[in-house]
Amino acid sequence: MRAVSIRQGAIEIEEHPDPLPGSGEVLVRVRAAGLNGADMMQRAGRYPAPAGSPQDIPGLELAGEVAALGPGASRFAVGERVMAIVGGGGQAELALVHERQLMPVPEALSWTEAGGLPEVFLTAHDALFAQAQLRPGERLLVHGGAGGVGTAAIQLGALTGARVLATVRDPSLRPAVAQLGAQVIAPEGFGEHGPFDVILELVGAPNIAENLSALRGGGRIVVIGVGAGAKAEVSLLALMAARGRIHGSTLRARPLEEKALASRRLEREVLPAFDEGRLRVPIAQTYPLQRAAEAYERFAQGGKLGKIVLEL
Amino acid sequence: MRAVSIRQGAIEIEEHPDPLPGSGEVLVRVRAAGLNGADMMQRAGRYPAPAGSPQDIPGLELAGEVAALGPGASRFAVGERVMAIVGGGGQAELALVHERQLMPVPEALSWTEAGGLPEVFLTAHDALFAQAQLRPGERLLVHGGAGGVGTAAIQLGALTGARVLATVRDPSLRPAVAQLGAQVIAPEGFGEHGPFDVILELVGAPNIAENLSALRGGGRIVVIGVGAGAKAEVSLLALMAARGRIHGSTLRARPLEEKALASRRLEREVLPAFDEGRLRVPIAQTYPLQRAAEAYERFAQGGKLGKIVLEL
Repeated sequence: MRAVSIRQGAIEIEEHPDPLPGSGEVLVRVRAAGLNGADMMQRAGRYPAPAGSPQDIPGLELAGEVAALGPGASRFAVGERVMAIVGGGGQAELALVHERQLMPVPEALSWTEAGGLPEVFLTAHDALFAQAQLRPGERLLVHGGAGGVGTAAIQLGALTGARVLATVRDPSLRPAVAQLGAQVIAPEGFGEHGPFDVILELVGAPNIAENLSALRGGGRIVVIGVGAGAKAEVSLLALMAARGRIHGSTLRARPLEEKALASRRLEREVLPAFDEGRLRVPIAQTYPLQRAAEAYERFAQGGKLGKIVLEL
Repeated sequence: MRAVSIRQGAIEIEEHPDPLPGSGEVLVRVRAAGLNGADMMQRAGRYPAPAGSPQDIPGLELAGEVAALGPGASRFAVGERVMAIVGGGGQAELALVHERQLMPVPEALSWTEAGGLPEVFLTAHDALFAQAQLRPGERLLVHGGAGGVGTAAIQLGALTGARVLATVRDPSLRPAVAQLGAQVIAPEGFGEHGPFDVILELVGAPNIAENLSALRGGGRIVVIGVGAGAKAEVSLLALMAARGRIHGSTLRARPLEEKALASRRLEREVLPAFDEGRLRVPIAQTYPLQRAAEAYERFAQGGKLGKIVLEL
């Protein structure tokens, strides 16, 4: 099979032996695989894949058809449309996924949409609900609303009856983000639009002090991206006064059972809304596998709305 | 009635008009009232009482007899032994408390013990269970194990089946803290004893970095004291890698319904263990009301195990 490889920071396409599904595993014929911020970090050598995941093939999500079943795998039949997050190895023609991590692809979604769905919707759903426990009527601020996780979080917040605000740096992207269900504001002085019950922090340390001062009593900040800096000065008195909490989260390093649980929650609570037309996967651009290097360059440039997806 | 007053940072005893209980309120003839760190901060002018509480009389907790009932108050009868946290005004011969904030005093407890119970046990119980959701078998680290909240937290952790470690700076206090159910360690290099699932932070900013590096995956830090500093540098990457969270909490500023809820939980989950002899209120020293100034000095000195309590 062909797969994306990272060689000294360069993106190449290489031949690998076809993998064989082990106990409980499903071999997926990948049709689409989204790019994520973590791929950029891995390309820069700063974010190795967790143990047990392919170390040499990037890719944290995929969608495709079930090609073969390992011993004991029974949730899906050969030919069914499935999608999943994976610890690595998603950007390949074939990928192994434990059946408990797989989700069915909603009928309304194309391969491209399905390939760009799992990572950002699982991340946003886990952050907003499993962690921050967002409730209807609460005020949610999404930092970095034009990014993949941002667009998912805005839609999930609006779907749940939260009042959603989102910061977007690039003015040209603001109208499209507003259409997802958010009041779009500039990053400068965002705190004036508070107080917020939940803040999804996708930017990093520079926002933390203003987040804290704009937090309503009992508010929650969930940090899932630190591209703009990771060392935050936190006023513990402000945190105490707000009776607030700051969560840090990543999906990638979690054990199978937690990823499986998050996938079951998404199946039950979120996937039906795609078939009902109430949620969508914004796609910025697609590339065929052989042009993966261009896809990575496009992702690194920023200034896009929605996902960059490889098609296979 | 006589009551403690703070005048320009000095502790005095002054006469006040007797208060009258309003709707749902109980007039308590106070028998004992514990001192807390917040009283020291209020004496220093840095922690005013919340709106609706007496501004000129300190005291966050009390125990005594029901002296009179306001309209509609029906949970307790005149003469019953009660105790409570209050937003202020506890260090007085008479105090008004909403009946939903009152708890019955366990039979096994003296007035002195009851007067030193509510603030530290409610604070520790709320921090460990309502917030950090401590579970049996988890490893709990209590910073400042010899203090009032520390001694309560150690006992509650041990009672719940957690494995409890506690830092204690003063070597002479360590044996007594160990008897409460903790493995006592020195503050220096505490992180070597990790990883910890829950860390109760009663000291402040200087511990935060080491707390984070000693946090097990999914771990929780609850900050309820910042005497040693409030500006913490937090590595958001470390927080993400641990999939951890940092809570800030105070009881004092909470609305009635939250204090009442915390009191109901303590009644149900904790108070029976005092009558069973499985929990106790360590008392360092007691003072009569007229020697309140000495009590404040003794509290400020530190180096004690257990509560300083005024007897009335």
